[in-house]
Amino acid sequence: MREKCYAIGVDIGGTNIKIGLFLAEGRLLSKWEFPTDISDSGVNILPSIREFISLNLGAIEKDKIIGIGVGVPGPVDFNGTVFGCVNLGWGEKNIKEELTNLLKLPVKVENDANLAALGEMWQGAGKDYKNLALITIGTGIGGGIVANGKILSGRNGGSGEIGHLTIRIDEKELCSCGKTGCVEQYGSATAMVKIAKDRIEKIDGIKTDLFAEGLTAKTIFEEAKKRDLLALEIVEEMGKAIGMALSHVAGIFAPDIILVGGGVAKAGTIVIDAIQKYYEKYVFYVAKDTPIKLGSLGNDAGIYGGAKMIID
Amino acid sequence: MREKCYAIGVDIGGTNIKIGLFLAEGRLLSKWEFPTDISDSGVNILPSIREFISLNLGAIEKDKIIGIGVGVPGPVDFNGTVFGCVNLGWGEKNIKEELTNLLKLPVKVENDANLAALGEMWQGAGKDYKNLALITIGTGIGGGIVANGKILSGRNGGSGEIGHLTIRIDEKELCSCGKTGCVEQYGSATAMVKIAKDRIEKIDGIKTDLFAEGLTAKTIFEEAKKRDLLALEIVEEMGKAIGMALSHVAGIFAPDIILVGGGVAKAGTIVIDAIQKYYEKYVFYVAKDTPIKLGSLGNDAGIYGGAKMIID
Repeated sequence: MREKCYAIGVDIGGTNIKIGLFLAEGRLLSKWEFPTDISDSGVNILPSIREFISLNLGAIEKDKIIGIGVGVPGPVDFNGTVFGCVNLGWGEKNIKEELTNLLKLPVKVENDANLAALGEMWQGAGKDYKNLALITIGTGIGGGIVANGKILSGRNGGSGEIGHLTIRIDEKELCSCGKTGCVEQYGSATAMVKIAKDRIEKIDGIKTDLFAEGLTAKTIFEEAKKRDLLALEIVEEMGKAIGMALSHVAGIFAPDIILVGGGVAKAGTIVIDAIQKYYEKYVFYVAKDTPIKLGSLGNDAGIYGGAKMIID
Repeated sequence: MREKCYAIGVDIGGTNIKIGLFLAEGRLLSKWEFPTDISDSGVNILPSIREFISLNLGAIEKDKIIGIGVGVPGPVDFNGTVFGCVNLGWGEKNIKEELTNLLKLPVKVENDANLAALGEMWQGAGKDYKNLALITIGTGIGGGIVANGKILSGRNGGSGEIGHLTIRIDEKELCSCGKTGCVEQYGSATAMVKIAKDRIEKIDGIKTDLFAEGLTAKTIFEEAKKRDLLALEIVEEMGKAIGMALSHVAGIFAPDIILVGGGVAKAGTIVIDAIQKYYEKYVFYVAKDTPIKLGSLGNDAGIYGGAKMIID
């Protein structure tokens, strides 16, 4: 048995921070979750992780810990610097340096979706594959690329930014990124709700079981399963946008498998079916039969990937 | 000095076959070019390479030759099998096996655009970069991806198929690949000529210096430099299609640099300017300043890449 046998995976999200303690061989021993304190431009986030770890993992000798792999919601460069994480209130910030100073442990930092892709390859639906793309569909849309078993971060950490591929040039409304016509504007949970509300408003006397109040992507999928026409249309829109985006991923990177994660993936096969239909329509023939599957680690994919990154 | 010191790069194109003899350190000693015999479904192509090599390189002792790296115009899988090279008349065919048997030398086979990308990284405009994408714009559009200094072939050799990304969903005409709305339908030399002819036909009494007879992409660029309105429009169309395609490459793979090669690149900065304008419009902000440059090896990029692949 190697001396250093534990690895810690941390996934910093806009709502919660997830922390997992892993054995180096891949077993998740414990996991925790606590709310992200995004007040004061997120200045408390890293100290709260230090505090949490010393409180809950203080009993483990430091020299048994290989290190900590951290996922953040934004592009990360090779130095561990982020160039702005809107959801956390962060501007440009060297996370690796700050957290190393706080924790006195080896730290690596990556984009959260890249880590989720690595986690799925390590212990999830991507096992046995070396080249894998993952798309996470939730409030926003993220993506991660693993090539030859390693995360492909890209220049300025900009790889796998699937949510901000431009797929429409006629769009007038701005995406949160400042462009127009992004995948995220049609395929995210937020977009699905917005499209539903827009249509209900515009079409007078529309007959649908979707109510504008309390409307979520989840209810849209539920109604679509009951064959509500408007709900079905919105699921089609989502499938068209994500199918187009994944056809680009396959045409450029040609992964062995494409995984779908994030909150929207919880709706199950209805999501995959909608995506697959348009993926096959738009993709180059050599990639038509690339498997598109649901991730199997759910919200834990990021902490798995964090642990794996620091072990490698 | 190592015992094996020569490497041979071969680039099989629809019109010509190029062969280069290299020193392992990267110097091109000699190069040759002869017409591709595509008669009888391309059955003579590989034997013609054997014949050429024994005739012209027969004086070199075989044990001084590291091997032969071969580029073909189509996707190649990890076994060296192609799944159809339309321009050569080939269907499914194991090139690596056939050529190894013919030549009794180590053979590696790759997609031609992937090799051109590797060649530019080795001795061309991509020197000093580890992550590079190359697009070749000619009769058709190809692309190559080098990640961490190695060709990224992808599943079924399908990576870098930039010419067949779907960028329009309203297109009615079929692309040669069987889909509609491919980059190649708007950005290739062939497409530029077709679009010009269509417009000249449709607009009665159009005033342009472009003549339908003898019209080529080259003349379109020449007229555009003289500010011919129709020519300028067609160059814009090309820039829009390629700019969109490269924005997808940057959003998914995030290369350190993007190179533009192929016949159309010979028109020079007018090509880069047209592409850059739309690239910046469509790309996610972290990749806005990714350099987009002309390749520097021209038609020799493929043989350079072939030699480099067999040396590695």
